[in-house]
Amino acid sequence: MQTIRIERTACPKEKPGKENPLTFGTIFTDHMFEVDYEEGKGWYDPRVVPYHKLELEPSSMVFHYGQEMFEGLKAYKTEEGKILLFRPDKNIERANRSNDRLCIPEIPEELFLEALKTVVSVDQDWIPTKPGTSLYIRPFVIATDPFLGVRPSHTYKFMIILSPVGAYYASGLDPVKIWIEDDYVRAVKGGIGEAKTGGNYVASLAAQVKAHDEGYSQVLWLDGVHRKYIEEVGAMNIFFKINGVVITPELNGSILPGVTRDSVLSLCREWGIKVEERKISVDEVVAAARSGEMEECFGTGTAAVVSPVGELRFEEERMSIGGGKIGELTQRCYDTITGIQLGRLTGPAGWSVEVK
Amino acid sequence: MQTIRIERTACPKEKPGKENPLTFGTIFTDHMFEVDYEEGKGWYDPRVVPYHKLELEPSSMVFHYGQEMFEGLKAYKTEEGKILLFRPDKNIERANRSNDRLCIPEIPEELFLEALKTVVSVDQDWIPTKPGTSLYIRPFVIATDPFLGVRPSHTYKFMIILSPVGAYYASGLDPVKIWIEDDYVRAVKGGIGEAKTGGNYVASLAAQVKAHDEGYSQVLWLDGVHRKYIEEVGAMNIFFKINGVVITPELNGSILPGVTRDSVLSLCREWGIKVEERKISVDEVVAAARSGEMEECFGTGTAAVVSPVGELRFEEERMSIGGGKIGELTQRCYDTITGIQLGRLTGPAGWSVEVK
Repeated sequence: MQTIRIERTACPKEKPGKENPLTFGTIFTDHMFEVDYEEGKGWYDPRVVPYHKLELEPSSMVFHYGQEMFEGLKAYKTEEGKILLFRPDKNIERANRSNDRLCIPEIPEELFLEALKTVVSVDQDWIPTKPGTSLYIRPFVIATDPFLGVRPSHTYKFMIILSPVGAYYASGLDPVKIWIEDDYVRAVKGGIGEAKTGGNYVASLAAQVKAHDEGYSQVLWLDGVHRKYIEEVGAMNIFFKINGVVITPELNGSILPGVTRDSVLSLCREWGIKVEERKISVDEVVAAARSGEMEECFGTGTAAVVSPVGELRFEEERMSIGGGKIGELTQRCYDTITGIQLGRLTGPAGWSVEVK
Repeated sequence: MQTIRIERTACPKEKPGKENPLTFGTIFTDHMFEVDYEEGKGWYDPRVVPYHKLELEPSSMVFHYGQEMFEGLKAYKTEEGKILLFRPDKNIERANRSNDRLCIPEIPEELFLEALKTVVSVDQDWIPTKPGTSLYIRPFVIATDPFLGVRPSHTYKFMIILSPVGAYYASGLDPVKIWIEDDYVRAVKGGIGEAKTGGNYVASLAAQVKAHDEGYSQVLWLDGVHRKYIEEVGAMNIFFKINGVVITPELNGSILPGVTRDSVLSLCREWGIKVEERKISVDEVVAAARSGEMEECFGTGTAAVVSPVGELRFEEERMSIGGGKIGELTQRCYDTITGIQLGRLTGPAGWSVEVK
């Protein structure tokens, strides 16, 4: 593997004060990882360098044809001062599946993992330690050919930036209100819904703005073909607990395969809870919410980890879930996953990767 | 309206030599237009400045969440030396419809048109005059907030860059071979297919690569719901002439409303040719191609203007159209539209806008 060279900043920035609660994704650390790609040459010159602006041609393909991929994961500092990454192999694997769909060249897994470890290690003093905080890691690739024809780019930049963060939702673990959207569509089978790429997120904005205006924090998407089956929430996968069974939509080609989704499924199975990955229609969800058989509902995602849903709104109907309080299983998933992330609990083999 | 300030370059670039045939979208002129947006302040400081690299934070939202819009139109120099834009009002109107879908603030129409005229005027010596060449104009907007949460950006940059171009297809007006795709999907109703934005183009790359590998230059998309109805070609709208009737898919929410598409429809109607904007299934297309009732097939788009289709491939079947030669109507549309663009013919009122 190529050696990652390190160039340290001469002017470290001031770290966020301990008194201010951290928000999400606004503050960036002193360094970033960068590696370039050129067709025929491959990925070259991997380096950790001072955090800096990018200089790009206005004709760079990323600005015009959306050829971009991103990932999101977190680093935590344990009480003993160890630095842990949570299941980075899953993010690396998914990144390369996204790359494949987007015609972006594969990133060698070993280089990707080493890059994560190196940049986090260099900026380890930026990892916050207050409850609910962590260092959010954003790997991303952009297409850089200065060319206006439509084809895959021949050059790319893969970067990793770091941001000390607090809770994704300002409300923390308070249950959120979710709007079930039946007009706009996020993605469809055969499209790019499975890939972690900008096009899926910009597609979600108009519905999100509409939901916000109505007092809802996220949108729950229905499938684009039947406009009937539950897909995912804006930035999360979705779980329902109905009559003791945990149900989440199956990965069908238009849903993002979340790492936290996979972790919740693994834990529930380990705990002997019946889980089902299957199609679930909005009618089934509404019926279960009305009858009170829906015991819990929660979203899962790297940014929020586990986020309880206290209200679902479909058309004109508002359905309260679990009396607007966080459910027992939701809390258990949150406590267990954050416990493993913080090194207080031992998770399944390979879930915690230490940065030396 | 705000005045557009002009800062001319001190180091003009060398223009492409007359001996080399121009390609598409690789060479850029001496200047570009730029205007910034900030929430609460609106669009400010419109300017034509020397063509330059963009300096952007790596956390700029455009790199992560695909909030970007583009347009494409062309400027021509007539034999008398007049500079003409072709239907810029249609591009401006569509840009703002795209912006609306993408939660990007509206660009004042008057400013947009003035920006087009000013930057083209400043770089008018770059307009090529050989047959088949023109100055391609690329207006585009990118989201620039340095923020990793998912929401519409509060800051944007709107730019216009210019590129002297030859034919979009190296083959010129030679009929192209089109691959009808039945696996990948470009867009679906409720999504962003109607908007001119990167996400639709990156979604098209994998199928395009597959088609290229099979010797086809473009992909013809089927709808994402039924996988049955014809939508559009990679970078063009599509027309069929079957038994004397010109048919093109209706604008259904997932198809890009092309300016050339609209122009061809207007001209055909003016010429007394029966046109139908309606759903057309791949079965109907295949049956008409097999029986020989399909007289012509062509794509329309700003880059290629009109592009004859000589072969359609669906599953294992290859269907030759018009004996692989350009059809009469296809040629007439091409000659008329380029004639109007070059000022040799008088088009409908408002189609030609002069840059003084």
